Amino acid sequence: MASTRAKIAVDAMGGDRGPGVIVAGAIRAAAELDIDVLLVGDSQILEAELANHDGANIQNIEIVPSEGVVSMDEGALTGVRRKPKASINVAMKLVKEKRAQGVVSAGHSGAAMAAASLSLGRIKGIDRPAIGAVFPTMYANKSVIVLDVGANVDCKPKYLEQFALMGTIYSKYVLEVEEPKVGLVNIGEEATKGNELAKETYKLLSKNSAIPFVGNAEGRDVLSGDFDVIVCDGFVGNVLLKFAEAVGEIMLQIVKEELPFGVRGKVGSAVLKPNLRRIKQRIDHAEHGGALLLGVPAVCIISHGSSQAPSIFNAIRVAKEAIDHQIVDRIQHYQKGGSLDLVSEVKES
Amino acid sequence: MASTRAKIAVDAMGGDRGPGVIVAGAIRAAAELDIDVLLVGDSQILEAELANHDGANIQNIEIVPSEGVVSMDEGALTGVRRKPKASINVAMKLVKEKRAQGVVSAGHSGAAMAAASLSLGRIKGIDRPAIGAVFPTMYANKSVIVLDVGANVDCKPKYLEQFALMGTIYSKYVLEVEEPKVGLVNIGEEATKGNELAKETYKLLSKNSAIPFVGNAEGRDVLSGDFDVIVCDGFVGNVLLKFAEAVGEIMLQIVKEELPFGVRGKVGSAVLKPNLRRIKQRIDHAEHGGALLLGVPAVCIISHGSSQAPSIFNAIRVAKEAIDHQIVDRIQHYQKGGSLDLVSEVKES
Repeated sequence: MASTRAKIAVDAMGGDRGPGVIVAGAIRAAAELDIDVLLVGDSQILEAELANHDGANIQNIEIVPSEGVVSMDEGALTGVRRKPKASINVAMKLVKEKRAQGVVSAGHSGAAMAAASLSLGRIKGIDRPAIGAVFPTMYANKSVIVLDVGANVDCKPKYLEQFALMGTIYSKYVLEVEEPKVGLVNIGEEATKGNELAKETYKLLSKNSAIPFVGNAEGRDVLSGDFDVIVCDGFVGNVLLKFAEAVGEIMLQIVKEELPFGVRGKVGSAVLKPNLRRIKQRIDHAEHGGALLLGVPAVCIISHGSSQAPSIFNAIRVAKEAIDHQIVDRIQHYQKGGSLDLVSEVKES
Repeated sequence: MASTRAKIAVDAMGGDRGPGVIVAGAIRAAAELDIDVLLVGDSQILEAELANHDGANIQNIEIVPSEGVVSMDEGALTGVRRKPKASINVAMKLVKEKRAQGVVSAGHSGAAMAAASLSLGRIKGIDRPAIGAVFPTMYANKSVIVLDVGANVDCKPKYLEQFALMGTIYSKYVLEVEEPKVGLVNIGEEATKGNELAKETYKLLSKNSAIPFVGNAEGRDVLSGDFDVIVCDGFVGNVLLKFAEAVGEIMLQIVKEELPFGVRGKVGSAVLKPNLRRIKQRIDHAEHGGALLLGVPAVCIISHGSSQAPSIFNAIRVAKEAIDHQIVDRIQHYQKGGSLDLVSEVKES
């Protein structure tokens, strides 16, 4: 689908677990995904990490040197401003200079947002970039994108309208849902339900013919599979995201505690070990890749700070898919007055 | 602990499943809990339902006749105003006239709130009553009360401060947590995080010495067991409540789908059936009773519309506990300037 091979800048210094796991994920991605990786960080450290993977195919990986990182302790904006050579800033600069089409960061999400805003700005017509997270649903092969999950805690109705548009484009062209259904997080089904933000947003979404809005989504509907795109403000979305991650872990914990109860339980659980791994895989957020920063003029994936190599691999895979499906071009194209549907318009523009 | 035997009015007409399950739950409660039940509804129907339980001990049950119900279709306030003899209104009147100390309803929660407000008013000093829901946590024997889960979608900081106080009293005297820890739902741990409501509420909670506020609770902390009381506005709380209920069901569904996978899976799952029931029990919200309307001058429990007999039983049990522990007196006492701790003050007042 893409005319050129995707080139992705990976901030190798940002994660909580050090550059080792990020380099491991990047090596696997460069080998399996048909992409080029620009590994941004301290050259000496990264060369040593690469050398640890003796015999791995690293010909698609290039190191781009940076100095320092923006840490969790300093304010995101302050840190990003004070350290122009920090890894996240260097990674964004690669995108700005068109040397890469996307960035993957496992660092401070505030820092990634601040660096993206300062280096890249916003897509014209988008007031606030949003963070989208892809969740598993009730159905094994169906996902839902929820946005915003944390970029904007106080929102205006028009921001949510823009989130709905970006979510629709993502659902349609990256998740390949033919006719995405958009829902608005609310406390009831009726148009008149909810807080001021929800009631006003409901009106805007109903009027916008480009948004396949099907109505309010209550808490129980978020993962039901009835919706493909769920919009809410970044406060509600962030609470939901972190709640969902924890509930998954708590449920696995309860299953692990209660299943082996008694003699029958011990025998039964031993037999079932492989299936418990399957359950974990279906629930585990890490399997579903990182979160996306939508609304900036480049693909930007924010992985969990605690990400291990498989999550990094998945985040890079998501970046490649977003690049291949021209997600940024499509949002820009729509904001300039183009339609969502005409792929050819995008290709020619 | 209570000086008198609790008398509880049960709205028998409100649930989605008809009066049969409510009567069944009430019969069990009257027999097992050492309480009196006033069963409110159509006399003929209720007598017939009671007759179905041939041989059951129903001497602690009295039927109080009502006419009609407030349905889901009509606006809550309109319905409650238009039908003074509806079951929910008659139940509230019993409390108002001191013929009962508490009400249990499985009907339209909006109708229960409206009827309580109109009949009973609010406790002095409480601007907005809140709905509190008790959730299971990571730990088998520990619960957390979350409020508000839906009564107030647009909140001011002082409402949340009042919710925190009522939650503290409930945690301490009904859930019997010696030193409850109160958390504020937010998107980060720092005091400066969050939307305007969260930032202002953080300041109020920090300053109020009667509230054992320990800081912000992120989505992942809600069920971690680190907090005993969690406060948020009714929009966020309602979305969380319904999300949590659904996630529990989705997880059980995934476990049921994946556990029996393959031959080993089939054998193992068959052996494990009793333990799967244990898991369901621990997760299932119905086991944890109904939600509480706190801030009105009577104990008022709102059970799920879809409640079955065990949920009704649990809701009545929660009502009895709240009455026995003088939860309303304690909130009133505090609002009049008394302390939270001096039980004797409450008893004497």
